[in-house]
Amino acid sequence: MQLGIIGLGRMGGNIARRLMLKGHETVVYDRNADFVATLSQEGSTGVADLPALVAGLTAPRAVWVMLPAGAPTEDTIAELGKLLQPGDVIIDGGNTYYKDDIRRGQELAQQGIHYIDVGTSGGVWGLERGYCMMIGGDAEVVRRLDPLFDALAPGLGNIPRTRDRSPAADDRAERGYIHAGPPGSGHFVKMIHNGIEYGMMQAFAEGFDILKTKNAESLPADQRFDLNLGDIAEVWRRGSVVSSWLLDLTADALATDPKLDNYSGAVADSGEGRWTIEAAIEQAVPVPVLSSSLFARFRSRQQSTYGDKLLSAMRFGFGGHVETPKK
Amino acid sequence: MQLGIIGLGRMGGNIARRLMLKGHETVVYDRNADFVATLSQEGSTGVADLPALVAGLTAPRAVWVMLPAGAPTEDTIAELGKLLQPGDVIIDGGNTYYKDDIRRGQELAQQGIHYIDVGTSGGVWGLERGYCMMIGGDAEVVRRLDPLFDALAPGLGNIPRTRDRSPAADDRAERGYIHAGPPGSGHFVKMIHNGIEYGMMQAFAEGFDILKTKNAESLPADQRFDLNLGDIAEVWRRGSVVSSWLLDLTADALATDPKLDNYSGAVADSGEGRWTIEAAIEQAVPVPVLSSSLFARFRSRQQSTYGDKLLSAMRFGFGGHVETPKK
Amino acid sequence: MQLGIIGLGRMGGNIARRLMLKGHETVVYDRNADFVATLSQEGSTGVADLPALVAGLTAPRAVWVMLPAGAPTEDTIAELGKLLQPGDVIIDGGNTYYKDDIRRGQELAQQGIHYIDVGTSGGVWGLERGYCMMIGGDAEVVRRLDPLFDALAPGLGNIPRTRDRSPAADDRAERGYIHAGPPGSGHFVKMIHNGIEYGMMQAFAEGFDILKTKNAESLPADQRFDLNLGDIAEVWRRGSVVSSWLLDLTADALATDPKLDNYSGAVADSGEGRWTIEAAIEQAVPVPVLSSSLFARFRSRQQSTYGDKLLSAMRFGFGGHVETPKK
Amino acid sequence: MQLGIIGLGRMGGNIARRLMLKGHETVVYDRNADFVATLSQEGSTGVADLPALVAGLTAPRAVWVMLPAGAPTEDTIAELGKLLQPGDVIIDGGNTYYKDDIRRGQELAQQGIHYIDVGTSGGVWGLERGYCMMIGGDAEVVRRLDPLFDALAPGLGNIPRTRDRSPAADDRAERGYIHAGPPGSGHFVKMIHNGIEYGMMQAFAEGFDILKTKNAESLPADQRFDLNLGDIAEVWRRGSVVSSWLLDLTADALATDPKLDNYSGAVADSGEGRWTIEAAIEQAVPVPVLSSSLFARFRSRQQSTYGDKLLSAMRFGFGGHVETPKK
Repeated sequence: MQLGIIGLGRMGGNIARRLMLKGHETVVYDRNADFVATLSQEGSTGVADLPALVAGLTAPRAVWVMLPAGAPTEDTIAELGKLLQPGDVIIDGGNTYYKDDIRRGQELAQQGIHYIDVGTSGGVWGLERGYCMMIGGDAEVVRRLDPLFDALAPGLGNIPRTRDRSPAADDRAERGYIHAGPPGSGHFVKMIHNGIEYGMMQAFAEGFDILKTKNAESLPADQRFDLNLGDIAEVWRRGSVVSSWLLDLTADALATDPKLDNYSGAVADSGEGRWTIEAAIEQAVPVPVLSSSLFARFRSRQQSTYGDKLLSAMRFGFGGHVETPKK
Repeated sequence: MQLGIIGLGRMGGNIARRLMLKGHETVVYDRNADFVATLSQEGSTGVADLPALVAGLTAPRAVWVMLPAGAPTEDTIAELGKLLQPGDVIIDGGNTYYKDDIRRGQELAQQGIHYIDVGTSGGVWGLERGYCMMIGGDAEVVRRLDPLFDALAPGLGNIPRTRDRSPAADDRAERGYIHAGPPGSGHFVKMIHNGIEYGMMQAFAEGFDILKTKNAESLPADQRFDLNLGDIAEVWRRGSVVSSWLLDLTADALATDPKLDNYSGAVADSGEGRWTIEAAIEQAVPVPVLSSSLFARFRSRQQSTYGDKLLSAMRFGFGGHVETPKK
Repeated sequence: MQLGIIGLGRMGGNIARRLMLKGHETVVYDRNADFVATLSQEGSTGVADLPALVAGLTAPRAVWVMLPAGAPTEDTIAELGKLLQPGDVIIDGGNTYYKDDIRRGQELAQQGIHYIDVGTSGGVWGLERGYCMMIGGDAEVVRRLDPLFDALAPGLGNIPRTRDRSPAADDRAERGYIHAGPPGSGHFVKMIHNGIEYGMMQAFAEGFDILKTKNAESLPADQRFDLNLGDIAEVWRRGSVVSSWLLDLTADALATDPKLDNYSGAVADSGEGRWTIEAAIEQAVPVPVLSSSLFARFRSRQQSTYGDKLLSAMRFGFGGHVETPKK
Repeated sequence: MQLGIIGLGRMGGNIARRLMLKGHETVVYDRNADFVATLSQEGSTGVADLPALVAGLTAPRAVWVMLPAGAPTEDTIAELGKLLQPGDVIIDGGNTYYKDDIRRGQELAQQGIHYIDVGTSGGVWGLERGYCMMIGGDAEVVRRLDPLFDALAPGLGNIPRTRDRSPAADDRAERGYIHAGPPGSGHFVKMIHNGIEYGMMQAFAEGFDILKTKNAESLPADQRFDLNLGDIAEVWRRGSVVSSWLLDLTADALATDPKLDNYSGAVADSGEGRWTIEAAIEQAVPVPVLSSSLFARFRSRQQSTYGDKLLSAMRFGFGGHVETPKK
């Protein structure tokens, strides 16, 4: 099957590669001509601009936009909307806010152009492991593109099948992708995935922080342990309730750098984590863990907060307490 | 009435002073002879050791121990237990863990000595405003000491009476002290007071942090305000729902140092805040606000946490993300 | 001074009354003619529609809109925008989202109409105590309306002045209102006020929950107290660190109904609490207490959550645990 | 190798079975004679009381106590302490509080008896998958018992080795058990494991709650999706960042009962979750996620809280708000 791909960074380039490995044809564009040249050498048809990309595809066309969320994606899709024809499909594989997907889906539908949003997890590992995809859009259009999604997905692999899963259930989920619903639903499900990811990560972070602190030299000798955090991560990978890919990555990290001295402790956050909390608030769902995880990242990037200083000021006010400086 | 006082620091010294102002007699001891000398000049009977203190009081004696919680208080009470007679009273006015009170109450009861625990709020302001006291111990013993508690308490003052409060209700609460129950209950109620105090302080801290951040130069000009935080604290003191003594202190602090540059942002915590969470867990009460307030203080004293570094390590593992250093 | 008022519910009606008490003139409208009639009898000039209201005011006019946030306010302001003239002022005294204020301010400025947003705390008590007001809009327009704001505000009253507050500081804050900044800033500050209010309320809620639970008959007798929660609230009103208006209200409530049997435990939340979290997320401010307070309200309105059921399902999965039903 | 086992419930019985499968010899006791009889038929040597158990083992003896934490374990170990000889080993495989282990280790060391604490994850699945074990005790004693631990552990299995793990690292971790340190450290590490487990579970619970709520009929049609939660759990198992055993269990549960109608929503908690928070507080580690997870379980077991009622009472006090009843 044929796919146009716009944006040949780490994600877009590997999507093209994985599709070609499975025998599909790709027509590719990036504003960086070097990226286009590289992919062309690997078998893609490289083009120099969006009109050329559209011209290089057979109708009904499918174009995968793999760009940073926000203006780059928005502008590209607007331009594609002018170049494409009824029946063509635009796929947004980036990290778009799901309400933008809903709006775009409605706008493009007026021109007869289909809009598909694909939330993707497992990014940098996708070429090797396959991409776990959550897809929003018209059911029949998603079906039409099935060969592409199937090629990109991890497939059944050696992961045991879920006990009691009905034979009548949609088998695409087992192969690593789902049709979640109308435009926006793919990125919505991916957003929640990331919210959960934040929570799981913070759970590990807090747990390992207690383990690490139990080794602290500041503790009295009879209360202190000398725990090997790398061994703990390793043993939990085998048969424990917390076994998970994030634990595997933790074991990797601790095997190389047990003190984690390579990291500053300032942790970035992305749109999905924030939007998850907004969705929860909109739907009146209590999410103490997901929000705490986001706030821990906000806090991690600051030396001190104005709020903390105000606490000290109040303590001085009512008790004459003078705080000792930060360790 | 006569009271022995052990420990003449800021709290103990002012308790002696307030009692003398109201015509009571004090026999005082501190291991620092200068403190004893000072109080003697102000009218107390100063003594050189515990036996002298006991000898200087008329039975049934009442001795107020006003020392740091833990060993200083524990040891002093143990020694007093050997010196006092049945019918005498030991009062612990410090910040003792309520389970220690319960134990001590039981131990001393075997010798016929009464044990009273007094949780006190409003410390450094007490000489001027009076002490808000929560008292645990035998009802009749607390009644016997009523003249002392009444002298120390703030009294009705100009605080409006609570609408609908029953005329049959214990009027000691309106005068600024309560008999909470058996030994331990005074410090238990004071502990919860401090837990609530942490939560209220953190609520102000977070709110003012958002206000402050809304002035940040890093914001685009059309999203930025130039809020005057001192004026905001001031206006909320008049008629708003958040009017409170902590807000008064906030207004004080912001009037002197609007940027709070005098504070490092490292905030101490005390036993009461921690014990409140332990009590909540023991009683299976969800306390997200009280615990978050404690954790914010823990976090405030660290430059970065091992947990945060682990988050970065995982992010590098699954996404190749390299964190930018801390601001 | 003359003011048009639209919306004569509890808030709008009392604003008219308080203004008249201080000698100001009011021209009033409500779609409910009975409300108009009542105010007319009390001295207002009642009118039958918006054009009549505009006609009844002398230019430059000032019109206070006191309606539910959202469509009622939005539509009324849109209609006023068509009826008023350059130099006139529209005041939104409701609970509008501050970003809507910013937009409206910009739209009306194009017609030369001024827009003022007033966040008000102390609602139902305002007639008696005065309204604490946070005002956004052009500085000179706010100055022009000063007689109105001064009349509505609580004034200095018997609240002690803040120590160290500079004599050069804006004295309006001490009289109970502030000019916070441009349009939107008034409601922004009021929004944060409510966020803090949520946090303080939840701090009291959690603290009293622990106190209440410590009386539970399910506890072993030697761990149980028999705390009088009404007395505790009462005593904390005098000299304690947590003294506050919310504590006064708590003491009121417990004096009438110590078991709080009149309340179902389902707690509503309003826009301001939610928008506070959104602002914090937008500004990357960690707000664990403010968010926990909002989530506690979300949770309070549900019998059980799907999430809780999923916890049980996982526990059954890994441990064969069968949960006992809810108490 | 030979092992005495006390307590033949689900855990103890399967430990005996797995050991026998690997060729080890077991001498077993339970106060329920039927359990002893069953195991005897499967190849164990059943005995009628503790003295018989001790008599049936060759010195140096090893006895595994697999009983409920608290009194049953405490009393049994006390009795064993009287029956065993210097050089013998007592292994506590239950869910003991690690500070109790430290105390017992010290007490038994005075008699020359070794004490080993084993925290075990993966309980009901252990016979099939093997037990993930975290072991505290003297290094050489743990080494001596290595054949037993090796037999019980899952082994390398088909779980990929951790990249970069040093060949010099302790290979027991890869085989599914670790020697964590001195007595108490095994249960300490297991306790933290459970704390993390709570956090991960709550992250999934909150995420799926948002997904579920996005399907709610109360939402306007254009904001509602019709998400298939079972398919979402299924697809995340393949290549997503949140893939984990807990997700596998979630997929299992949703395959059988997508609405989770079989669960009441009341969720139990155990000692480990609570002790984790206490350890964090003792070590001043901020653990917002682990504590929120515990509090969500506390909350899940209550219809309403006194705290929530107090919120309503305050809202009525300052705003005249009357809450609508619970859904």
